[in-house]
Amino acid sequence: MGELIFIGLGLFDEKDISVNGLEAARECDVLFAEFYTAKLTGTTVGKIENLIGKNITVLDREKMEKQDIIIETASNKKVGVLVAGDPMAATTHLALRLRAKENRIKTRIIHGTSIIASAPALSGLHIYKFGKTASIPYPRENYFPTSPYEILKENLKNELHTLILLDIDEKEEKYMRANEALKLLLEMEKERKEKVVSNKTLVCVLGSVGSKIPKLRAGYLKDLSKEDFGEGLHCLIIPGKLHFMEAEALVELAGAPRGIIEEI
Amino acid sequence: MGELIFIGLGLFDEKDISVNGLEAARECDVLFAEFYTAKLTGTTVGKIENLIGKNITVLDREKMEKQDIIIETASNKKVGVLVAGDPMAATTHLALRLRAKENRIKTRIIHGTSIIASAPALSGLHIYKFGKTASIPYPRENYFPTSPYEILKENLKNELHTLILLDIDEKEEKYMRANEALKLLLEMEKERKEKVVSNKTLVCVLGSVGSKIPKLRAGYLKDLSKEDFGEGLHCLIIPGKLHFMEAEALVELAGAPRGIIEEI
Repeated sequence: MGELIFIGLGLFDEKDISVNGLEAARECDVLFAEFYTAKLTGTTVGKIENLIGKNITVLDREKMEKQDIIIETASNKKVGVLVAGDPMAATTHLALRLRAKENRIKTRIIHGTSIIASAPALSGLHIYKFGKTASIPYPRENYFPTSPYEILKENLKNELHTLILLDIDEKEEKYMRANEALKLLLEMEKERKEKVVSNKTLVCVLGSVGSKIPKLRAGYLKDLSKEDFGEGLHCLIIPGKLHFMEAEALVELAGAPRGIIEEI
Repeated sequence: MGELIFIGLGLFDEKDISVNGLEAARECDVLFAEFYTAKLTGTTVGKIENLIGKNITVLDREKMEKQDIIIETASNKKVGVLVAGDPMAATTHLALRLRAKENRIKTRIIHGTSIIASAPALSGLHIYKFGKTASIPYPRENYFPTSPYEILKENLKNELHTLILLDIDEKEEKYMRANEALKLLLEMEKERKEKVVSNKTLVCVLGSVGSKIPKLRAGYLKDLSKEDFGEGLHCLIIPGKLHFMEAEALVELAGAPRGIIEEI
């Protein structure tokens, strides 16, 4: 009997996997991985293979979404699918799980650390005060969605913080930088004109979350959009209403101007 | 020079810790843990000590919040603080981190799998469609907050899903059961009368998330409030507007009545 195990790799390097995940991966007959929905910037496929002690077949978007190779292999083998972050955050993986179920293949999920919880935790902002998460895609010809602006507007109205994830273009090896994203937010403001974002908006930039030395900077959009936050994946948090201890955390841990404490 | 490392233990048993977390814990001079903000129901302190190969001093709420013993030890030793879930989800840990910073003690965070991301992932509901998270506390004399009702109402209005965490009373070793929580939601409805919750509300119950055999059941409140979801920590998800694949997931993976697909 086959089995399909979704194994989360976590956020940054090969050792972000849980001990349960590592043990399960070592027991699999075949390991697949995909890195287009999320990516570990602190390691390589070779290092992950070394830690697990098995070869990994990396699938591109097309093969992953077609699913056939995974379903066929899992029909009579124990198959692990390695995914950065939590292994069930993207619709692709849910679709694969449903198809496995349809084919009477047993499935199991081994969770991984996820940016959804880790970025708020690192920022010092209270995780229970986050609203809906937003994502900023790379603009393409005739495609410049302002849905992140809409989400941000709604969250701010409800005094909630907003986590904003940034696009990954795995094929081109492009990972949206925080300052690109901040400029896109200002462009959305120019288009929508609802006074949601400005140069004076307090923002928090996170880079390489999960690494030994993650980057965490808070300040006004105007200032941070000039900064370079280096390698690794970036994301943004736009704080809503701040509690005193949250403001203190942004000042002490993220270098925000002390004035934000007085503004509360 | 001392150091304070916050290490996430993840959700269920001692092997939910990441390889990075395990290695860091093994390098610490002193290990503290607290289990009143969150709890691993699939293991014991002894098993965690065995895996790490070191003794752990478990702190009660009072000692943890006073912080002194941790700060004093970390002033000249490498100290690990083990916390279930992500180690920075509760204000207590942020307060400790700020005090360490004040005392010029270096801090580091090793993230853990968190119910905030894992419960949505397991449910099959799209994580980007969750609004603010709610928590239901045990009612006490003259204390029956309806804030979870308020959060749910707001999320439903915005067509968002709501994750609801349930109270833990570590001293009394009481963990709120899903059916208790469902009854409390109905009581809130009786008090507020804003037609947010009823016996016909579609709910999703999760138990022992992170274990090999997590519990996942979806159905109408009336039916699920009669079921016993066994040992382990429980939480709830009240779905907002469902996408077709989400409804399919609730039917196929969580046993929801097939009618919910037609209702979309």
